[in-house]
Amino acid sequence: MANSITTDKPHWTALAAEKKQRQLESIPHEWIVTPPSDSTLDVSAFPETCGLLNAREIEITNTSVDVLLEKLACAAWTAVDVTTAFYKRAIVAHQLVNCLTEIFVDRALARAAELDDYLKTTGQVVGPLHGLPISFKDQLCIKGLETTIGYASWVGQYADENAVLIDILIECGAVPFVRTNVPQTLAWPETFNHVFGRTTNPYNRSLTSGGSSGGEGALVALKGSPLGVGCDLGGSVRIPSAFCGLYGLRPSYGRLPYYGIRGTLDGQDSVLPVLGPMANSVVGIKVFMRAVINTKPWLNDPLAVRKKWDEDEYNLVDHGGSGKNLCFAIMWDDGVVVPHPPIRRSLEIARAALQNAGHKVVDWKPIKHKLLGDITRDIWNAGSAEEYMITTSATGEPLITSMGLDVANVTVASFRPQNDGITAYQLWQLQKLRQKIRKEYLDHWKATASETGTGRPVDAIICPAAPFVATPHGKNRYVDYTAVWNALDYAAAIFPVTTVDSTLDGKAPHAFYNDFDKDVYEMYDPEKFRNAPVCLQLVGRTLEEEAVIRMTEIVDAALLAAK
Amino acid sequence: MANSITTDKPHWTALAAEKKQRQLESIPHEWIVTPPSDSTLDVSAFPETCGLLNAREIEITNTSVDVLLEKLACAAWTAVDVTTAFYKRAIVAHQLVNCLTEIFVDRALARAAELDDYLKTTGQVVGPLHGLPISFKDQLCIKGLETTIGYASWVGQYADENAVLIDILIECGAVPFVRTNVPQTLAWPETFNHVFGRTTNPYNRSLTSGGSSGGEGALVALKGSPLGVGCDLGGSVRIPSAFCGLYGLRPSYGRLPYYGIRGTLDGQDSVLPVLGPMANSVVGIKVFMRAVINTKPWLNDPLAVRKKWDEDEYNLVDHGGSGKNLCFAIMWDDGVVVPHPPIRRSLEIARAALQNAGHKVVDWKPIKHKLLGDITRDIWNAGSAEEYMITTSATGEPLITSMGLDVANVTVASFRPQNDGITAYQLWQLQKLRQKIRKEYLDHWKATASETGTGRPVDAIICPAAPFVATPHGKNRYVDYTAVWNALDYAAAIFPVTTVDSTLDGKAPHAFYNDFDKDVYEMYDPEKFRNAPVCLQLVGRTLEEEAVIRMTEIVDAALLAAK
Repeated sequence: MANSITTDKPHWTALAAEKKQRQLESIPHEWIVTPPSDSTLDVSAFPETCGLLNAREIEITNTSVDVLLEKLACAAWTAVDVTTAFYKRAIVAHQLVNCLTEIFVDRALARAAELDDYLKTTGQVVGPLHGLPISFKDQLCIKGLETTIGYASWVGQYADENAVLIDILIECGAVPFVRTNVPQTLAWPETFNHVFGRTTNPYNRSLTSGGSSGGEGALVALKGSPLGVGCDLGGSVRIPSAFCGLYGLRPSYGRLPYYGIRGTLDGQDSVLPVLGPMANSVVGIKVFMRAVINTKPWLNDPLAVRKKWDEDEYNLVDHGGSGKNLCFAIMWDDGVVVPHPPIRRSLEIARAALQNAGHKVVDWKPIKHKLLGDITRDIWNAGSAEEYMITTSATGEPLITSMGLDVANVTVASFRPQNDGITAYQLWQLQKLRQKIRKEYLDHWKATASETGTGRPVDAIICPAAPFVATPHGKNRYVDYTAVWNALDYAAAIFPVTTVDSTLDGKAPHAFYNDFDKDVYEMYDPEKFRNAPVCLQLVGRTLEEEAVIRMTEIVDAALLAAK
Repeated sequence: MANSITTDKPHWTALAAEKKQRQLESIPHEWIVTPPSDSTLDVSAFPETCGLLNAREIEITNTSVDVLLEKLACAAWTAVDVTTAFYKRAIVAHQLVNCLTEIFVDRALARAAELDDYLKTTGQVVGPLHGLPISFKDQLCIKGLETTIGYASWVGQYADENAVLIDILIECGAVPFVRTNVPQTLAWPETFNHVFGRTTNPYNRSLTSGGSSGGEGALVALKGSPLGVGCDLGGSVRIPSAFCGLYGLRPSYGRLPYYGIRGTLDGQDSVLPVLGPMANSVVGIKVFMRAVINTKPWLNDPLAVRKKWDEDEYNLVDHGGSGKNLCFAIMWDDGVVVPHPPIRRSLEIARAALQNAGHKVVDWKPIKHKLLGDITRDIWNAGSAEEYMITTSATGEPLITSMGLDVANVTVASFRPQNDGITAYQLWQLQKLRQKIRKEYLDHWKATASETGTGRPVDAIICPAAPFVATPHGKNRYVDYTAVWNALDYAAAIFPVTTVDSTLDGKAPHAFYNDFDKDVYEMYDPEKFRNAPVCLQLVGRTLEEEAVIRMTEIVDAALLAAK
């Protein structure tokens, strides 16, 4: 990463304006469309009706990852065709929900053309992802491009080399083609910053697309990308996946190579960020994970775990081996904040579908979720204020204190740093306490063997990804339905279940755990959340990515069968 | 772990004296021997000549782990016989080199008797380590016993439960039978504390047994235990293994379960301590690692890596697959401190033996070892001074500032904390720099593929474990030959090569890298190190335990063949 120029640096507003102008110029003029007015909230159908994409391009962009790869491998569709189709749809998506940061059409099409040549000349694909366009959250450095993670202060900092995962995906034959929007500092579950502005939800633009991988969520939901890579520190892959109706995976620490990412809280070695895939099908998640792990990422990233893709684990050898008669545990709430009615209903749908498919369903008893969430925030906040201050003070860029529409006047949300940092010794005491709770939670899980009837502990937990669906902007203020699994380092996947239905999802009064729970309850009104996707989360144990993917497929099939 | 009583706590001298008295009373009177006078430096033959052990007990205690397990499994030797034999020899060893802390004969023999009954009744062994006595460094909590890690302040703190590894080994059929001495704070490469005093080297009692697992090193060297478990944060398994002529393994973070250990710098989540086996044969190391990993320790320790024991990796599938034509790289020195002549000679012996066995040997070029060592110390020292102060201030116990014979008058050694701690943000910056160097080192290793002639990068590095053999007490002041591999999280094994020979190992002047290098050179005099074992270290990459064990077997066989 080239050093920033700290002398003679322009004011942050100038940097942001100049970058935004360059972004605009990077869009081919012929791909500019006339989007619906702001009062049109649901724009999900627009890419197919706007006229920019022809029928074949619509077909290509509606195709799932596995079929795309088959068509590419047999040259039924060229990489240039596929990249062009997704690029056009991505640019349309951007004009609807403002989801992109870096746009580099020529470079992506040149790469696609190389792949086509290779296949034509050799008769072989370059690798298992031959010709597949992949989008990336604005953290994954690509040589020659800027990576601002939403800081105006970092405009003009061009990467000297690719992130390790980018190199691996290129080795696999993929076509990196766009990067996507994030919140300033990344430490928000919504997506807004001073450089690129706000990303909105394609199903209802008055709602957030989530964050911090919110650009990715919105883009994939609009099928502007077949596969996106986000980053998850406390839910940043899963929250936008859930809010945008996608499949998404939060792998365990080190299962995917993280080296070369521009992150937040760099050097924080405790509750670690991880990269994870987001897609419109669970098969996309599987294909991606298997391809990347099969390249042995530990040869190129010192923190990547030396653990092969394990077909036995995918075939659930540690869970009975057949994929039948599994025992799922539903966590109806976390004991802190009760989920809104659509979430409750989705859990009921999942329970019925799984029971119909012959699986057992029990209740999950959460333990110490509040404490886990608090400790995790305290660990992140141990040095975050100093980091943000140093980063933004280079240009005088204001630190954003809310994701709300009226940025200046909204109260600071509860998960912003409240202190000036602590000592290393104090940090160690927090980390020590966290390890103790991780042990308690593991033992708690193991002890469920007595109630499953399978002879095994619960195979997976099914729980909300948030106590609500996509919220109005600035209102997503609770991330512990995802963050606790980061603290425990459990593999977790998001899958879609339904959408908000005002007739089925009326207000449902309940006793409150606390004042915040009451606030969350009072936010609910089915009309406000009209058309929002409702997703759930499936949680396995540490480094159980293969089993989590397989069990998500099983749940997905059960939901489909129950429809 | 029960809380310490902070009110009405006796003075530390009273606590230490009372504990030492209890230790003395725990030794069966009939096992008290008359050890040679202090002027007898080499006491390694004494256990077999002192008359306490009969011929069968001598045979048992001279038997390697694999054969012991066979004899136990077929009931040729009972667990009570084997435990009694090792216990007697351990107690003799203790009277020679002061290596034990907790002694619990009745409990161990009762456990052994249970195992014998089980085998007799069922015809089956309890597990793969049936009847094997195992000794433990004074960090691995055993229910009902104290774990002081050399702090007088912690006398009287009894464990409420076993460390996870203890439970696993019991499940495997092992017999925990003694615990062994450590330095106060654990953060020294020698072994001395205010409670139990100093452990000396069985081959020359004027020399240290190393540390911090120095009690374990001395005990196993005297064959008072067939297998010991130490803990390695910066070399604490490998240094005593090397100084005492043993095989020892430093696994990667999380390969063995660490939960339930009383450690130092608890909550420090960056450069992590790991448990590791120490034995008189490499097969002992293998048997132990395979048995423990096959119990799936990740089900009981949230930090244990979900990675099965991999026979393919043991069979070197990633290293050509045959165990032949490997390429080893010898690191003659680390660019900071030049090793003493016996170490140099042992590297030459290893090179010749490997070449004779048909392997290729190239030179290893160390990069940034000084920086890695410095960063690692800075990370540990970020909060260590505060931890030590809080622990010792409970009773007024003085913090030991040297491992020298005259504790009060020796200068503070260079690796003691020099500061009062840093902030969490400052710690993150150190950790970030360390990750960058880990990446550089991994790339450096990968790039050796161009010089090996095998098509692969170097298969393993062979290097000193320290720039010297066991030093006089208080003189072991350089641990970076081991600590850099902790910082890089590379799996590393110790194996014996030769012993110091005054005719072959005369002084050998050389240019000095720096003043410290000169100091180390000037410490050398072959007479001073008479009879000391000379060991080397074999280093593989992260989570390559299986391959490191196999390659150590290959080197060991080559050395034997060359004798």
